[in-house]
Amino acid sequence: MIHVLSSTPSILNQFIAEIRDAEIQRDKMRFRKNLERLGTIFASSISARLTYEMKEVITPLGIAVVPVLQEYPVLATILRAGLPFHQGLLHFFDKSDNAFISAFRKHHKDGSFSIHIEYASVTDIENKVVILSDTMLASGSSMVLAYRELISHGKPKHTHIAAVLASVEGLEYIKKHLDQQDITIWVGVIDEELTAQSYIVPGLGDAGDLAYGIKH
Amino acid sequence: MIHVLSSTPSILNQFIAEIRDAEIQRDKMRFRKNLERLGTIFASSISARLTYEMKEVITPLGIAVVPVLQEYPVLATILRAGLPFHQGLLHFFDKSDNAFISAFRKHHKDGSFSIHIEYASVTDIENKVVILSDTMLASGSSMVLAYRELISHGKPKHTHIAAVLASVEGLEYIKKHLDQQDITIWVGVIDEELTAQSYIVPGLGDAGDLAYGIKH
Amino acid sequence: MIHVLSSTPSILNQFIAEIRDAEIQRDKMRFRKNLERLGTIFASSISARLTYEMKEVITPLGIAVVPVLQEYPVLATILRAGLPFHQGLLHFFDKSDNAFISAFRKHHKDGSFSIHIEYASVTDIENKVVILSDTMLASGSSMVLAYRELISHGKPKHTHIAAVLASVEGLEYIKKHLDQQDITIWVGVIDEELTAQSYIVPGLGDAGDLAYGIKH
Amino acid sequence: MIHVLSSTPSILNQFIAEIRDAEIQRDKMRFRKNLERLGTIFASSISARLTYEMKEVITPLGIAVVPVLQEYPVLATILRAGLPFHQGLLHFFDKSDNAFISAFRKHHKDGSFSIHIEYASVTDIENKVVILSDTMLASGSSMVLAYRELISHGKPKHTHIAAVLASVEGLEYIKKHLDQQDITIWVGVIDEELTAQSYIVPGLGDAGDLAYGIKH
Repeated sequence: MIHVLSSTPSILNQFIAEIRDAEIQRDKMRFRKNLERLGTIFASSISARLTYEMKEVITPLGIAVVPVLQEYPVLATILRAGLPFHQGLLHFFDKSDNAFISAFRKHHKDGSFSIHIEYASVTDIENKVVILSDTMLASGSSMVLAYRELISHGKPKHTHIAAVLASVEGLEYIKKHLDQQDITIWVGVIDEELTAQSYIVPGLGDAGDLAYGIKH
Repeated sequence: MIHVLSSTPSILNQFIAEIRDAEIQRDKMRFRKNLERLGTIFASSISARLTYEMKEVITPLGIAVVPVLQEYPVLATILRAGLPFHQGLLHFFDKSDNAFISAFRKHHKDGSFSIHIEYASVTDIENKVVILSDTMLASGSSMVLAYRELISHGKPKHTHIAAVLASVEGLEYIKKHLDQQDITIWVGVIDEELTAQSYIVPGLGDAGDLAYGIKH
Repeated sequence: MIHVLSSTPSILNQFIAEIRDAEIQRDKMRFRKNLERLGTIFASSISARLTYEMKEVITPLGIAVVPVLQEYPVLATILRAGLPFHQGLLHFFDKSDNAFISAFRKHHKDGSFSIHIEYASVTDIENKVVILSDTMLASGSSMVLAYRELISHGKPKHTHIAAVLASVEGLEYIKKHLDQQDITIWVGVIDEELTAQSYIVPGLGDAGDLAYGIKH
Repeated sequence: MIHVLSSTPSILNQFIAEIRDAEIQRDKMRFRKNLERLGTIFASSISARLTYEMKEVITPLGIAVVPVLQEYPVLATILRAGLPFHQGLLHFFDKSDNAFISAFRKHHKDGSFSIHIEYASVTDIENKVVILSDTMLASGSSMVLAYRELISHGKPKHTHIAAVLASVEGLEYIKKHLDQQDITIWVGVIDEELTAQSYIVPGLGDAGDLAYGIKH
C-alpha cells in the first residue's frame, strides 16, 4: 500500500516546493529545516497506524483516561541524506530507538554503479514496528538493501518505508523485491522520470550534498 | 464546525497525555515542547483548509509544477499561556504575520472574576485568514474577547480557533457568541467539566504557570 | 558595568551581521532564529556570573561531583520584540520562571511619544537573580519602565539587563536612572546614533515588525 | 593546546551534570538536547579562533561595517555517538560543509578490541579549518583514526578536536599520535579513569546507546 501525502492539500506541499527550489536550496539551514518539518508530518501520518492503549493519567485536578503509544517504533535511516528527515521523525518519536545504515554507490569503469551497505548500527528490531526512512527513493536499491540489512538483525512486526520524493521506477522496484504484507510505503510526492544516473527528475538534485555539502 | 483532533488515533494523543500528567509536567521544557509539537500538528491539520496555487519551481534538474500556499494565515495568540502552542504554529507557518493579545482575569471581592483585554499587538488582518490560538479553551470568554479585539482591527476572511484542551461549556459559549459562518474550531480534546473558577477538569492545571512559572 | 559581547571575535558577530542585513531580514524565520541563537550566547555569557554548588551525580559507572546551578534566574522580557531573544535564553535556562512585560509607545499630536506599561505577567522575583531582556535598547525608557514594573513585584537579588543592540544614548539613560549596584548590562553591540523617533542607526530597523509583521 | 570549558563556571556545567546523571538520562530527548546545547557552546568557544573580515551591511536605516566569518569550518563527526553534539555545532555553523565518519569496535576473542573505520562521507577539506567532534574521547583511538581518515581526503589548514568528556589517557594518546601544531583540543571536562573496556569513569556510560538505543 502506498500513501502519497501530497495528494491532499496541506503545508507539506509548501515544504516540498521549497526543497525542490534551486534558489531556496542555497540556504542549507532552511533545506534541512524543511526536511525536519516533513519528518514530523510523516511521523504524525504514520502514527495513525500505530497501536495505542488507554492509560490513567493523574492531572493536577483529576484523572484522565487517555490513549498513549503502546510502544515506540524503531527509526531506521540511510546515511547521510536521510539524517535531516530522520531528525524530524525523532522529534516526534522522541523515545524511539534508532538504526543508521549507510549505502554506498560504487561506480564502475563502464559508468554503471552498484550499491553496497558499508555501515549499520542497529538496535533490537525483533517484533518491533520499524520506520525506515530516506529523503529520496530513486532507483529503490538503497532502500531494498537497507531493508535486507535491517532484517538480518531481526524480524520486524511491520516496516513503514518513508521517503519525501520517490520515482515511479523506484516504487516499482520496491514492490518487486519486498513482500507487500511486510511493508507500508509513505511518500511525499512521486516524480515520473529517473535518469540513467538514478537521479529523480525534476526531483531536487542530491539531497545529501544540499544538506551537508558536496561529497569529495 | 468543530474538529476534534484526538478523535482518530495519532501521536497527538501521546503529547496530550504528557501535558496532562502532573509528574511529566515537572519538566517545564518538555511541557513547552509538547505544546510546540501540538502546534505543528494543528498547523498541518488547519493547512488542509487553506488555499494553494500552482507554481513553477526550477529544480537543479528540471521544472516542477507544485502547489504552494497562496497566502500565509495571520497567527494570533493569547498571552501568556498561548505562547508555546503559538511557537509550534509559527514553526510551520514561518512567513506568517502575528498578533499577540493579553487577556486578564480581574478577581472580584465576591470570588467571581471578569476577563479584560489589556494588550493587543495586531498586524493587518483585513481579509486575511486568521488562526487564533490558546492552549486552553475553558469558559470561552478570553477567546471571545480576543476575537472581538481582533476584529476591531479589521475583518478577517475567516478565523480558525485552535485550542489543545476545551471544555464542553467553553465550546457552547463560543457557539453562542460568535457567528458560525465566520469561524472554524479545532480542538485537541474536549473535557466534560468546568469548575466554578473556570478550570477544566480533568484538564491539566494552569498552562501558563506550567510553561512559565506561577504568576505572582 | 557594561559587557559588550562583540568586543571579541566570535560567531555572535555573524549573527548580528545577519539580523542587520535588510536582504537577509526578508527571511523572518532566519531573523527569529538568529535572535534565538544570540539569546543562547547571552545565556552562556551571563551564566558565568551565576552561583553554582557541588553536587554528587550518580552516573551508570560511578559518582561524579560536579557543579550545578544553585538556582535558575528569572527571565523577564519586553513584548513583542523581546520574544525571540527570550526564547534563546529560555532554551538554555529551561527550568527558569518567566516574566512578560509590554511597553507601549503612545504617540502624541506633536510627534513626540511616551512609553507606558500595559501588561505585566510576573512570577516571584523576590531575592532572585533576574535577566531582563529586549532585542533593542534604543532610548532606554522601555527598559527602565520595565525594570520599575518588575521591582514593584519584589526586590531581585541582582538584575542582568541584556540587549542585542544598544545605543550610546540608551546606555546613558539606563546608567542615569538605575542604581549601578543593582544591575549588570550585557549588550551585543553599541551603535552611535539614535534618531528623533528613537530608532538606532545603523541598527536593524524595527525588531518586532521584522520578527512578527508590521503592527497595524 | 587543550581548552577545558568547564574550568570556568557556566551553564555548560549544568548540561554536563545532566548528561552524566543516570536518572536524567532516562529522558533520551533531554540527553540529546543537552548534547546539542553543548555543541552550540563549543561552537561559540571555537569560533573565537576563526577568521573574520569586515563587511558593509545595508540595514533598513543605514550602513553598518561589521565582522563576518571569512569562511565556515568543516564539521566532521564520528558516528553514531557524535551526532547530537554535531547537531549543536551545525546549529551555529549553519553554512558549514560536513563529514561523517564511522568508527567500529571489533571485539576479539581474548576480550580486547581494535577500532576500524567503516564509513566516511567527507566534503572538501583541503586548506579548510575543520572541527572534528565526538561526544566522548575515551581511549582516543577513534579520534586518531578519524583524523587520519580525514587527512587522507586533503590537508586541513587546522583541526579543532572537540569532545564533551575526555579521559586523561585519551588526551595523552592524542598528544602522542597527532602533531600538536596541526590541532587544538577543546573538551568539556576531563575524567581520571579509563576502564579496560575503554569506558570513561565516572563518565556517563555509552553516549550512543543513551542517545539512540542499545546497539544490537
